Amino acid sequence: MDNKKKKVTFDDIAKYTHFSKTTISRYFNNPDSLTLKNQEIIAQALVDLNYQENKLAKVLANGKSEFVGILLPNLFLHYYSEMLNQILSTYETFGYKFLVFTSNGSEETERKYLQELLAYKIEGLIVLSHTIPSQELASYHIPVVTIEREDEYVNSINTDNYMGAVQASSLLVKNNCDILIHINSDVSPSVPSYGRIQGFRDTCQQFNIRHKMILTDLGNSYPETQQRIGEVYNLIKEKYPDKRKGIFLANDTHANIFLNLLMRDYGTLPDDYRIIGYDDSPIASEAIIPISTIGQQIDKIAHEAMKLLVSQMNEMKKRRPVPQTEIIHKMITPILVRRDTTT
Amino acid sequence: MDNKKKKVTFDDIAKYTHFSKTTISRYFNNPDSLTLKNQEIIAQALVDLNYQENKLAKVLANGKSEFVGILLPNLFLHYYSEMLNQILSTYETFGYKFLVFTSNGSEETERKYLQELLAYKIEGLIVLSHTIPSQELASYHIPVVTIEREDEYVNSINTDNYMGAVQASSLLVKNNCDILIHINSDVSPSVPSYGRIQGFRDTCQQFNIRHKMILTDLGNSYPETQQRIGEVYNLIKEKYPDKRKGIFLANDTHANIFLNLLMRDYGTLPDDYRIIGYDDSPIASEAIIPISTIGQQIDKIAHEAMKLLVSQMNEMKKRRPVPQTEIIHKMITPILVRRDTTT
Repeated sequence: MDNKKKKVTFDDIAKYTHFSKTTISRYFNNPDSLTLKNQEIIAQALVDLNYQENKLAKVLANGKSEFVGILLPNLFLHYYSEMLNQILSTYETFGYKFLVFTSNGSEETERKYLQELLAYKIEGLIVLSHTIPSQELASYHIPVVTIEREDEYVNSINTDNYMGAVQASSLLVKNNCDILIHINSDVSPSVPSYGRIQGFRDTCQQFNIRHKMILTDLGNSYPETQQRIGEVYNLIKEKYPDKRKGIFLANDTHANIFLNLLMRDYGTLPDDYRIIGYDDSPIASEAIIPISTIGQQIDKIAHEAMKLLVSQMNEMKKRRPVPQTEIIHKMITPILVRRDTTT
Repeated sequence: MDNKKKKVTFDDIAKYTHFSKTTISRYFNNPDSLTLKNQEIIAQALVDLNYQENKLAKVLANGKSEFVGILLPNLFLHYYSEMLNQILSTYETFGYKFLVFTSNGSEETERKYLQELLAYKIEGLIVLSHTIPSQELASYHIPVVTIEREDEYVNSINTDNYMGAVQASSLLVKNNCDILIHINSDVSPSVPSYGRIQGFRDTCQQFNIRHKMILTDLGNSYPETQQRIGEVYNLIKEKYPDKRKGIFLANDTHANIFLNLLMRDYGTLPDDYRIIGYDDSPIASEAIIPISTIGQQIDKIAHEAMKLLVSQMNEMKKRRPVPQTEIIHKMITPILVRRDTTT
């Protein structure tokens, strides 16, 4: 590799174009102060001289790194990888570059990484991981937007989980189920997805329909989860043999496991079972019978998160930034996706 | 937010600790030249004063940004999201931070982004996207490692695709299949995964077993792919009714679609079909019958890619870097995962 390439300076560009160094500097910092023709001459010179802009020098001068940090818990769940994909694709709209980190459960590494991000002068932070409390996030004095996690002290964009659960439960009621069953882990009320539990309960009470919540640890790996859902499946089968059961599961991976258990037992989806998942992950359409689900508008959530973050990062660049007086929590409505595990 | 916080300077630290500014500077640039006790005094002062290191200033001084760019085609396929996850997790080992981009098919945006990365003085580049030819990547004069894409002019880490296909085909032969069928898109010989086609053909010829390759456009979206695999499925069913068919598909998503078609037709996996996929994606274990597959050692590939990149980035930091004389292409052996669609 040619590592000896000489660095092209403003001096070189000035000599080549016969403009002053001040003019060259103006081209980079305030191009509109030059005529279009002169802008073109300098632009051509940069190509001819193979000039490589050093953005870091600019960042040091004006504090605008155009970096945003993203903290994710993992990329194994499709929800996170698709959210990351959508956030990254806002580059075309907003121009921000993303420094990405997945904690995979290591709190110590996540804190260390966050300190590094701050040292690199990131302008803002999007947080999906659950590790660091929102009160601590707020103490870093940079704009923060969280997605689907505890968000008491910071701005957030979340799916309207309550509405999603109402949609799912109402569909099961319309499917003439005798009993509605919600299978979920024991979610904390401080987490946005707790809304699913509330939405399920309220809908059942409103329709005055018999219902049951099975809130339990559903495991942290696929084999574990398979085992736990298997136990829940047997329990339901034993306890409600003559009822038409409407099962609302916390995500599509769980719904698919439940469906496969039924298919292996009966070779088909029995008439006394109706199933709906959550997330609209690929597995929902790839299952042996395509699974009805609640789709989160991941593209919209990502865009709204960046829009909110950008407005605050812009505020911070003003000479006298106005501090945010009220924390913003915005909800995005989910979409009911009807497939073949409901009618 | 408290935006008025005064910036802590070397002067402030010097006054607070009663050391000279030179000593403070030495602490940051050559800490081992100070006694341990003095290092501790300064470290405590940084905490007391709430000093925020500015890494960008350091980068400008020594050229070591500790940034690595990653270009991915998408994050929809589990292979890419898991690879990204594994690359990001090398942060604990190597300390590099990652600027991540997914092209989602937009060549123009990818080139623009790459120019920005170079302007931000990234030290190296990991490329999984297929957009930019390796000859062009080599022309940027920074260390590059590619993974599973055309790599004539740059270093690469790839799965031994040939070996994977040999493993898959040999298993189907041992399953007493009368005919082996490989379903894949019409892969270019310049792409590493072409090895799968060669490995399949060579194994069939070696065992002198009847075989057929169906190489065709299998679509770019799930509904499209479902449609195409459906057509291939009908063709095979019609053409080889009395044969025991060993089907080797290019990935697990395709294998799952094929399996579901069989399950819907027969309610079970018929005795005259044996199926093996590729990748060991989640869908392979989540399918109605767990699918046999070829597992890529994604963690190992990611680690080897970073190891190779780091060795070259370190070389570039030497006063007289020795140019790489030979391009390195390293192969990682895949692993046969036997599940329930073979015996």
